[in-house]
Amino acid sequence: MEKVRRVERMVALTKLLVDSPQELISLRYFCDFFDIAKSTLSEDLSSVKTALQHFSLGSLETVAGVAGGVRFIPYRQGERAMSVLREVQQRLQEPDRVIPGGFLYMSDILYDWHIASRLGEIFMTRFADRNPDYIMTVETKGIPLAVMVARAFNKPLVIARRDSKVTEGSSISINYVTGSNRRIQTMSLTKRAIPPKSKVLLIDDFMKAGGTANGMRELVTEMGGTVVGIGVLVSTPDPKVVNDCEALLILNGVDEETRTIDIQPVDLEADKEA
Amino acid sequence: MEKVRRVERMVALTKLLVDSPQELISLRYFCDFFDIAKSTLSEDLSSVKTALQHFSLGSLETVAGVAGGVRFIPYRQGERAMSVLREVQQRLQEPDRVIPGGFLYMSDILYDWHIASRLGEIFMTRFADRNPDYIMTVETKGIPLAVMVARAFNKPLVIARRDSKVTEGSSISINYVTGSNRRIQTMSLTKRAIPPKSKVLLIDDFMKAGGTANGMRELVTEMGGTVVGIGVLVSTPDPKVVNDCEALLILNGVDEETRTIDIQPVDLEADKEA
Repeated sequence: MEKVRRVERMVALTKLLVDSPQELISLRYFCDFFDIAKSTLSEDLSSVKTALQHFSLGSLETVAGVAGGVRFIPYRQGERAMSVLREVQQRLQEPDRVIPGGFLYMSDILYDWHIASRLGEIFMTRFADRNPDYIMTVETKGIPLAVMVARAFNKPLVIARRDSKVTEGSSISINYVTGSNRRIQTMSLTKRAIPPKSKVLLIDDFMKAGGTANGMRELVTEMGGTVVGIGVLVSTPDPKVVNDCEALLILNGVDEETRTIDIQPVDLEADKEA
Repeated sequence: MEKVRRVERMVALTKLLVDSPQELISLRYFCDFFDIAKSTLSEDLSSVKTALQHFSLGSLETVAGVAGGVRFIPYRQGERAMSVLREVQQRLQEPDRVIPGGFLYMSDILYDWHIASRLGEIFMTRFADRNPDYIMTVETKGIPLAVMVARAFNKPLVIARRDSKVTEGSSISINYVTGSNRRIQTMSLTKRAIPPKSKVLLIDDFMKAGGTANGMRELVTEMGGTVVGIGVLVSTPDPKVVNDCEALLILNGVDEETRTIDIQPVDLEADKEA
């Protein structure tokens, strides 16, 4: 490939790095791709690092050694995280979201890839120290969010089904009791999904009492894995049956008559220190 | 914000553009963000454009006028598209994917965000001229793919459910007959999802006879919208009840005994001219 000007090489280098979050790319790969010396690449990467840091757009990590390389980590914290939560809060407070029964219509926000991808980065930043091997959710509404968490972590996504499907091969099913209305539900997962001893991060859109999260945890345990965290977008103030859930927003109440929705983002920084 | 070196500004500019595919960002926004003159920004954008083109990493489009700006379009075509299809083909041909009944285990590939995001760009490139307002799928396995198509188009995602949910408010339900085993199924969509006269692109992971796609089409019609295209990842060679489906790979057959899977990518370029 013919040589290009440095400024154009930087554009391509940035694009390739941010397109593959968390992926360790060898320095050799970039040297070959751009036909440049290692010293030149080091200078380039140092500029990428400085720029990302300066504009709070994530981090660049370099791993030394033969198996080493460089990877982009899409950390999102501080004001860049809180502004996303405030946007979700504002949209969830729109009065016409109240559905008879005191439910909240959330699908349009949950299916908005723009919001989901930013929330994915916030969850990744928050659970980064748990080093999950898999990101797991249960169908359906939490899937776009879980896809984006999996992207930010660069880890495989696993989706539990409400019933077992012939197209997924042999699977493990469990019955669980929902925490809020005490109904018995089934949840299943193909045996191929999670190898034993895997560390699994559970992601869901909403937690009322926590029955579903407990069901997912049981499924993971059945498969010989461990749950290293439970992240949900919105939770009630004090879920009855789960005490280790970490929510980004707390739904304090929905007043059907006045159509007022009391929902508050958690303080990400304060929470971290606790 | 203090001035930074040009090379570092280019890194941030690239990151911000590729993070929001298809979003028209005003030149004023970037001028303010970087505290630079419009002429300087124009030079910067011209370099981004050249670099993306040179390395076939997508396009940058400038829209003139007061409501104008610049947007990144993640086109993926030619070898950059075919190599993705060949990778999917290779993985789908692994013998241990054959499930009793002649089914193919595909979930791990469908839930791989890396593959899904590349396939999303391929679908967007293919259906770009149809200008869809919404991307629609039906739960569950096609959702990650549809999320990434929605991302590449920067359009809202809509997910039809197998049954109607109380948390989605009033919805429209239809019954449809599956094309392959003639069973009656239900599919529903909340009324809020699609405004009348919307142009909708249907996305699914697999098409056997096409009954599900027809069900989705009926649902869109019921809501006063129009289907402008049907994109599926894998299809049988000649779906019985749908004739306007566009697949990226054709599954010619699965031999359960020898565990041979005959699956071929379509020729994206040839297909385009037809």
